[in-house]
Amino acid sequence: MAPGREQAYAVSLEDVQAAAARIAPFAHRTPVMTCSAIDKAAGFSIFFKCEQFQKGGAFKFRGACNAVQALSEEQRRCGVVTHSSGNHALSLALAAQLADIPAYIVVPSNTPQVKQDAVAGYAGLVELCEPSMDAREAGAAAVQARTGATFVSPYNNAAVMAGQGTLALELLEQAGELDAIFVPISGGGLSSGIATAAKALQPGIKIILAEPRGWNDAADVAASKAEGRLRMDLPKPATIADGLQGRMGDLTWPVIRDRTDAVIAVTETEIVAAMQLIYERMKVVVEPSGAVGLAAALSPRLAPTLGPDVRLRRVAVVLSGGNVDFGARGFWRAWLPPE
Amino acid sequence: MAPGREQAYAVSLEDVQAAAARIAPFAHRTPVMTCSAIDKAAGFSIFFKCEQFQKGGAFKFRGACNAVQALSEEQRRCGVVTHSSGNHALSLALAAQLADIPAYIVVPSNTPQVKQDAVAGYAGLVELCEPSMDAREAGAAAVQARTGATFVSPYNNAAVMAGQGTLALELLEQAGELDAIFVPISGGGLSSGIATAAKALQPGIKIILAEPRGWNDAADVAASKAEGRLRMDLPKPATIADGLQGRMGDLTWPVIRDRTDAVIAVTETEIVAAMQLIYERMKVVVEPSGAVGLAAALSPRLAPTLGPDVRLRRVAVVLSGGNVDFGARGFWRAWLPPE
Repeated sequence: MAPGREQAYAVSLEDVQAAAARIAPFAHRTPVMTCSAIDKAAGFSIFFKCEQFQKGGAFKFRGACNAVQALSEEQRRCGVVTHSSGNHALSLALAAQLADIPAYIVVPSNTPQVKQDAVAGYAGLVELCEPSMDAREAGAAAVQARTGATFVSPYNNAAVMAGQGTLALELLEQAGELDAIFVPISGGGLSSGIATAAKALQPGIKIILAEPRGWNDAADVAASKAEGRLRMDLPKPATIADGLQGRMGDLTWPVIRDRTDAVIAVTETEIVAAMQLIYERMKVVVEPSGAVGLAAALSPRLAPTLGPDVRLRRVAVVLSGGNVDFGARGFWRAWLPPE
Repeated sequence: MAPGREQAYAVSLEDVQAAAARIAPFAHRTPVMTCSAIDKAAGFSIFFKCEQFQKGGAFKFRGACNAVQALSEEQRRCGVVTHSSGNHALSLALAAQLADIPAYIVVPSNTPQVKQDAVAGYAGLVELCEPSMDAREAGAAAVQARTGATFVSPYNNAAVMAGQGTLALELLEQAGELDAIFVPISGGGLSSGIATAAKALQPGIKIILAEPRGWNDAADVAASKAEGRLRMDLPKPATIADGLQGRMGDLTWPVIRDRTDAVIAVTETEIVAAMQLIYERMKVVVEPSGAVGLAAALSPRLAPTLGPDVRLRRVAVVLSGGNVDFGARGFWRAWLPPE
């Protein structure tokens, strides 16, 4: 980057602040919790930003709501479309319902009925497709052609990135000066929004990315950051953190590359151990993807990654969502006698 | 009761207010949460008093802390003793640890190691006994004789009842005017404390007790209230709400008899359904005993029990605790592949 010439990132602090004003009537200001038992295990103070209490059960509502509220009158009439089976689908349907516009959600046909029902419960218009990325994209394109709906990517979209960044505005007001924020990363919408807002407000803050390495050791963010180029050739991680299997995009990657400080790739057993602390000590529900930030904060690889000059005293960990299908894990059945 | 002659109850509003001042430096002021999805299912607004976020993970800390803090200097030197394998044991150990006095906890030898370890983790001095009520009482008496420690009953103790009642002082400040409070009942310490404080402050408020009927249909509180006499002859309920298998005592029963308005005995499947709503919609952890209040609020037997003249609009539900042994239910294992 030549001196004096500013790199054009997709999102700025001002975009995040505008998003915060736009979503304020709809989104929850989620609480920050602390837990002395976990602080003891970590060796530093952790402020947990609890996005499982966000509308729709995850931070995704912030970005979806900002994208919907930023539409023009004409765009609103045609509605929005996305392809997703997860929290983004739910959140976009809910954001559209609150704005009273249609949301078309292209859902792979192998998506559990409970998730399809949840989208429909927020008045989302479910359109089934074959379970492949090509079919999902073709399905969304077909809806766009038929209805004129605006496509809203789960992460690679400036309005979504700015919406997710609103989390950081709240967090820094709630927790004050921080040494670092641990953020689960997949497509990078949340991380890029947070990094943009937090570094603008507290330039010394470190943004530490947390990704699942999966049983197949497929840590694409760590590999991309290490090489300084977006690695799209690695397999999808085989992980219980099923919300973190996406890939960064052309809008999120430059921010991730330039405005984040480290990546910790955590194992499956580290994710489960973090969940256990969150359930048993904090008494809150978190999905595996949502616990990956704490897994990174507790990882024995954290200190070597940061190096001897970095000392953490006060950090935040984003608990990004709490949408767990307990029934599919046999949890309710475990409380009742066999039939 | 002759006119002009006041019945001597074990606890008064003033006792509860004194307890609140005594425990304020130690106990958490727990949050009140709401959930629009559950309000919709109930047909009225519910304010959830979240005692899973109390120290020790349950409301029990309030009473234990008040009992410890109310000791004389001489009593403190000898410490406290109880027999319990549950939340009262944990809470008394923690309250004693914070006061820097010994707590002897007589624990049945069939108590899971994880629970014994939790008591020891709060510096509780575990004394094992045979797994029967006679052996537990004899064990506690032996400790008393040996050490001079003060026995603190889990519920049938005026200081404990007053301590549990502090929950109601906070709740009415947080939620304002209420039509009713739903409270899980076992020995009646929590219910009697809440009834005493809440009815003194809002005389029209209804205290609705929630108990598990168990697979063996052993609803002793409902039977006792219906007959106006303390029924001690019913079997212990066979229930997953293992914190609610105790019996009322001579101090709690008169308050329960005179200052509570209705009893709803809930089924095991109703308890699990309430837990499911709390985990999946509110995103917080609750133990089965802690979900019994919501099960009662959602029961089809509630309206017939209250009669046609009672209309509920704004109520509170006490979520009394969140100490769940997820590992024993196979929950962590369910996230990892078979070994």
